[in-house]
Amino acid sequence: MTGELAFIQSLRALATHPAARGLNDDAAVLEIGAETLVLTQDSMVEGVHYLPGQDMADVAWKLVAANLSDLAAKGAVPLGVLYTHMLGENDDRFVAGLREVLAAYDTPLLGGDTVGRGQAIPPPARSFSLTAIGRAAHTPVPSRSGAQPGDGVFITGPVGAAMMGFEALERGLAEAGTAFRRPLPLLSQGRALAPLVSAMMDVSDGLLLDASRMASASQVTIAIAAPDVPIAAPEDRRGDALRWGDDYQLLFTGPKTVLWPIEAHHIGTVLPAGDTALLLDGAPLPADDPLGYRHSG
Amino acid sequence: MTGELAFIQSLRALATHPAARGLNDDAAVLEIGAETLVLTQDSMVEGVHYLPGQDMADVAWKLVAANLSDLAAKGAVPLGVLYTHMLGENDDRFVAGLREVLAAYDTPLLGGDTVGRGQAIPPPARSFSLTAIGRAAHTPVPSRSGAQPGDGVFITGPVGAAMMGFEALERGLAEAGTAFRRPLPLLSQGRALAPLVSAMMDVSDGLLLDASRMASASQVTIAIAAPDVPIAAPEDRRGDALRWGDDYQLLFTGPKTVLWPIEAHHIGTVLPAGDTALLLDGAPLPADDPLGYRHSG
Repeated sequence: MTGELAFIQSLRALATHPAARGLNDDAAVLEIGAETLVLTQDSMVEGVHYLPGQDMADVAWKLVAANLSDLAAKGAVPLGVLYTHMLGENDDRFVAGLREVLAAYDTPLLGGDTVGRGQAIPPPARSFSLTAIGRAAHTPVPSRSGAQPGDGVFITGPVGAAMMGFEALERGLAEAGTAFRRPLPLLSQGRALAPLVSAMMDVSDGLLLDASRMASASQVTIAIAAPDVPIAAPEDRRGDALRWGDDYQLLFTGPKTVLWPIEAHHIGTVLPAGDTALLLDGAPLPADDPLGYRHSG
Repeated sequence: MTGELAFIQSLRALATHPAARGLNDDAAVLEIGAETLVLTQDSMVEGVHYLPGQDMADVAWKLVAANLSDLAAKGAVPLGVLYTHMLGENDDRFVAGLREVLAAYDTPLLGGDTVGRGQAIPPPARSFSLTAIGRAAHTPVPSRSGAQPGDGVFITGPVGAAMMGFEALERGLAEAGTAFRRPLPLLSQGRALAPLVSAMMDVSDGLLLDASRMASASQVTIAIAAPDVPIAAPEDRRGDALRWGDDYQLLFTGPKTVLWPIEAHHIGTVLPAGDTALLLDGAPLPADDPLGYRHSG
């Protein structure tokens, strides 16, 4: 992690354009003429983000869905994607998954690149990178950094479904693994919420980790009440569900009195900045609690 | 190659949006409101596009330059880049090169992703993917497909400098390798040419290969006179210089009578479509002539 943090710090020093949002948000927000573009890029690496042997159609689905989820967190409408494909096994399945997910979200493939893996034996692990471009449906575009003391903290639905799906997959139950294999970006929910929230992000790396990131970006403390978080897992897995990623729910803050136009669960409160970014049931978490899953760790 | 061609065909079947230009151009061209965006994504893979042990600052430079060259071919002004970094050795050098090239072309870093290589042994080949976003300075945006019989074929400068640079590098002469290590995207030339050309592209994979691609996209035959092509290599390497990539000159077509506003060398003529896309000194090339360098082969 240390190397990565140092590296990201050095990138942040480069990313001084306001559209970059300090590399501290789900996406870049670029004004051009009268339009506001939302731009994001996410990757999947074999052995890091997916396992060798997974159906490549699911890998394609998840790559697109993860990027569209970043657009959802900005209340943006997808305009298209560009993606880089590293050739390998089961490319036909990859294209099949790509076709399905782009059709499901009415998102055009605009371009990209196709690359080989070179001649090394054994061949190196594969990686795929995708850029999604969207148009903001509402400005100002929500950020992670707008949470205000006194706001409520909300989530669009349960966490833990991807965890349970992953574990079902490990037991060979592909059908039960849908939540992990084929996450659903909440685009319409994001658009409905964008005019109303003070801060918003998608939960990709674990609720507690992502909430702590929102708190840090907003310079507040976020207090979450664990029993109030909806989970799609057995009660004895609640702690894991709060730390598992890949559910792509939207986490957002706003006045406690708002009648939200979509499913919204009140799970906490924004407090003035305290000693820690995050409180769970009123207490800070141990320093060695990972809070979530850092993909690049 | 066969697998790659089949794969690209299946992608083309997906890319039906007009902005994708059939995945047959240097970049996507997307209209949004009153603006026209130009979007491109190119990658570099260790062992394919660069060699292990190369200075990572040069890898960063070339990754950005290759993408900006695609914008140059569209006459676009860069708005920014997003890029995905796979962590590894000499990341500090990578950032240093990134800083230099972005400053040289006044292009902001807008976002991206940082990924790890996981625990696999051997680790995955490092790969870096970059998306460049530009704004078209002139519409209609030049394409590869507009060459008209009767047009002249022109190039902005010599080919072969990258080849000679690569060979100097192999002999340990880093300074002499600049043309290979740090290519210069011809952004201002592209903007000056865009209103005047019938077709334009950058020469990234070899003059003959790229000219044949332009001919195919335009449904014409392009006849090139080898002695008229400026080369930055010894005369006995002319054939190689015409097939080597990485020079990032702009190849374009237009009326033979135009007084071009920038350096332009008349190297051939556009003919009605004949039996082959390309003629060199009046003759078709053997079927086994690679014409250029296919990076993903």
